[in-house]
Amino acid sequence: MGSIDANNGAAFATSPVAPFKPLDPEEFRKQAHRMVDFIADYYKNIENYPVLSQVEPGYLRTRLPETAPYLPEPFETILEDIQKTIIPGLTNWLSPNFFAYFPATVSSAAFLGEMLCTGFNSVGFNWLASPAATELEMVVMDWLANMLKLPKSFMFSGTGGGVLQGTTTEAVLCTLIAARDRALETIGIDNVGKLVVYGSDQTHSFFIKTCKLAGIFPCNIRIIPTTAEDNFSLSPEALHKQIQADVADGLVPLFLCVTVGTTSTTAVDPVSQLAEVANDFNVWIHVDAAYAGSACICPEFRQHLDGIERVDSLSLSPHKWLLCFLDCCCLWVKKPELMVKALNTNPEYLRNKRSESDAVVDYKDWQIGTGKRFRALRLWLIMRSYGVANLQSHIRSDIQMAKIFEGFVKSDPRFEIVVPRAFSLVCFRLNPLRMSHATYVELLNMKLLDLVNSTGRVYMTHTKVGGVYMLRFAVGATLTEDRHVYAAWELIKECADALLDGNL
Amino acid sequence: MGSIDANNGAAFATSPVAPFKPLDPEEFRKQAHRMVDFIADYYKNIENYPVLSQVEPGYLRTRLPETAPYLPEPFETILEDIQKTIIPGLTNWLSPNFFAYFPATVSSAAFLGEMLCTGFNSVGFNWLASPAATELEMVVMDWLANMLKLPKSFMFSGTGGGVLQGTTTEAVLCTLIAARDRALETIGIDNVGKLVVYGSDQTHSFFIKTCKLAGIFPCNIRIIPTTAEDNFSLSPEALHKQIQADVADGLVPLFLCVTVGTTSTTAVDPVSQLAEVANDFNVWIHVDAAYAGSACICPEFRQHLDGIERVDSLSLSPHKWLLCFLDCCCLWVKKPELMVKALNTNPEYLRNKRSESDAVVDYKDWQIGTGKRFRALRLWLIMRSYGVANLQSHIRSDIQMAKIFEGFVKSDPRFEIVVPRAFSLVCFRLNPLRMSHATYVELLNMKLLDLVNSTGRVYMTHTKVGGVYMLRFAVGATLTEDRHVYAAWELIKECADALLDGNL
Repeated sequence: MGSIDANNGAAFATSPVAPFKPLDPEEFRKQAHRMVDFIADYYKNIENYPVLSQVEPGYLRTRLPETAPYLPEPFETILEDIQKTIIPGLTNWLSPNFFAYFPATVSSAAFLGEMLCTGFNSVGFNWLASPAATELEMVVMDWLANMLKLPKSFMFSGTGGGVLQGTTTEAVLCTLIAARDRALETIGIDNVGKLVVYGSDQTHSFFIKTCKLAGIFPCNIRIIPTTAEDNFSLSPEALHKQIQADVADGLVPLFLCVTVGTTSTTAVDPVSQLAEVANDFNVWIHVDAAYAGSACICPEFRQHLDGIERVDSLSLSPHKWLLCFLDCCCLWVKKPELMVKALNTNPEYLRNKRSESDAVVDYKDWQIGTGKRFRALRLWLIMRSYGVANLQSHIRSDIQMAKIFEGFVKSDPRFEIVVPRAFSLVCFRLNPLRMSHATYVELLNMKLLDLVNSTGRVYMTHTKVGGVYMLRFAVGATLTEDRHVYAAWELIKECADALLDGNL
Repeated sequence: MGSIDANNGAAFATSPVAPFKPLDPEEFRKQAHRMVDFIADYYKNIENYPVLSQVEPGYLRTRLPETAPYLPEPFETILEDIQKTIIPGLTNWLSPNFFAYFPATVSSAAFLGEMLCTGFNSVGFNWLASPAATELEMVVMDWLANMLKLPKSFMFSGTGGGVLQGTTTEAVLCTLIAARDRALETIGIDNVGKLVVYGSDQTHSFFIKTCKLAGIFPCNIRIIPTTAEDNFSLSPEALHKQIQADVADGLVPLFLCVTVGTTSTTAVDPVSQLAEVANDFNVWIHVDAAYAGSACICPEFRQHLDGIERVDSLSLSPHKWLLCFLDCCCLWVKKPELMVKALNTNPEYLRNKRSESDAVVDYKDWQIGTGKRFRALRLWLIMRSYGVANLQSHIRSDIQMAKIFEGFVKSDPRFEIVVPRAFSLVCFRLNPLRMSHATYVELLNMKLLDLVNSTGRVYMTHTKVGGVYMLRFAVGATLTEDRHVYAAWELIKECADALLDGNL
């Protein structure tokens, strides 16, 4: 990887390299085939790599030159470096032994869709710039809305509509801005300091960040405590009290973030009852179902969205549990016109008859950025290649594996389930002496987690809820099979044995 | 594409489909190879498709079923539908005859990088979750900073650092929030209504949107007019006057967006002189070099970044002119700690020893969203596969083609160059009678544009600056060669002939 100074003046005003064709179709074909094999082989061998990368901070800088090469390097050299230098630094999210955070699920169909999305490189900021990108996104958003039995008020075939974004943070920011600007029209921008937003102590960390981004005063962000008795779901009574207190103080309730499947423990806030409270105060209600929303394509889980007809917006991230690869967050809104009003731009250089006819959707006004990728291809290929039947089966299979793990934990008297399992996440801890809050138990579980993860054979993470430190075993990496769950449990037990033998 | 109701209750509690393996490596290999050929063939045949899609709004909904299929469909059926249903709805951004907006450039190397990024599906929200993703991003940001001769104050190897984001809007929002929160620490959040931001009437439309998102009062967004005399660049004197007036009114100057290469005409704001003005008032200066920044890797264009050491942040989108595919926006900041302070989150479930040691970068605190793709692979593969030499050659070749087109326009007395060409965009109009602002000339050029685009053989767009409607011929689609520029000019002349014969 030789490198020389790139910008040394007039000497290179005429380039020393041959005519440059960065997209020769036959060269593209050859190299892309090679890369397909490289990736397929990575999947085939993925169990041979440590799940959690074992490198030390700064490992890469020492292995790479300080500047970009001046002349081209051969493709095979680069591939070798990926194998030798990049892969050891990966935490292998697609490993079947990845049980950390929430797994990010994938599929061949989504990969093909992403290849096409990249390949076409359609920039769908408005309809004209790529009609198929806009219209396919509208179609897949309605398809998924149908699978979730959302009311017509969220569909293009009804009175609402949906959009694909990158992350939940962006999606919620768009809805929050729509809500904020609607409220400010009434109370005036000088009163922005009166706007109050509501979440629980289990709402994802993006919520506070989003509110700050949107200029909500930090003192007006209400983080309502949850309790173990409520399984860490947001209490409608607590919300009601808080809103009433704020109104009494002359403040203006603006926005409520309801979570279906919290990040720590997959707690489900009661949508219907919370909506009943918030509707009385004209609060914009957003439901964040990033992870658990996907389960609601199965009739037996759809109850968690009961009351959805009373909320204003809903987001769900198919990159979490619908085999979609990063990044893909679905956002449905009842009143797209409010979002468009808050987010629209209309520069001369993008003006065109189609947009002015109001007959088309211009997605740039439904999102933060201007540019927009053709993300819908991934979801379309997933839905068509697998069908609803397989997608339901996939959700059920993950939950079945989580149940198996839950059974293991329950069968070993040294362990305990800390929070009842709702989906494919098991929250548990090692607690041989059945102490409840002791620092000892926390330290023991921290050590257990370190020990398990340091083997590289399994990767799990932790959380702390209601003061209790617990381990999270999140089943759902796409390649995970029963045998991986069995092996993970054996490893956890072995590590617990080692710890308890050494320490007790 | 048969489809039946997906959620009809208990009947499907046991799935009717065979065990489901969404990522079988051999199936993946087979289908991905097939898709490589599909895309390579698309590139080979791309000139056969109309550049601007000729479909009518709503075309797709009528061709697709209303709901997702319940059972899987064969891959070949889906591929056929892509050919028959999706491709006709594409505006083919990669066509060599695409001269609209700014072209979105691509390359085999970037495609391979994107395949890897997708394939690994690393979620790099913090260092631990994917050390290689974080560290490679740090490396490529420093590499590109070196290619641009940025001062060390923007590099990790110095005192700053860079991050990859999706769009300029997101990048600028992050810096604006950092600036806002720094200012509010001094003046108090109740004074948020005093913060004033500055751009010109040529600043990209994202600017006003971003300011509104961040809660800057719309009445405090200063859009300073530019003039033809200044080639539509922002005048330091005008800025100075405006800031002084605002200070005199008791307002607080917060943020200035300087553009190197405006969207309408590629005007270049004078970075150094504007910084001299703004530095006196402690204004956060951001340089948006989304398009033209890439040219600054050539020594002969680097002057446009002179004075960059005096600004606070810089963004540049390699998806525009550095062969990168969507979406990729580089953001460098001098004081990352201000951005991290404004954007950081620290939920228990993401806590880890590495992050707490402060020895690592956690990119979630440098961006809007939590999740983060391994975008650095694309840039890394581009820089290594082509070397700085080829990338410079690519910039120069586009500019050379634009010069050819400029020459054609100048050689035909019926046409005129409206704004001097700076990079690879030519702003021109048909004006046979040399009238200056007449509605007739505007209508004539609108008709000419419609006529050219309706052939499907070329796609151009327009803008209106200083009251003048003009056509934009933006050279730079990756497959464009001299012959496409010649043919485009012949077509434009033919259309002009037809128009003038019929109308004059």
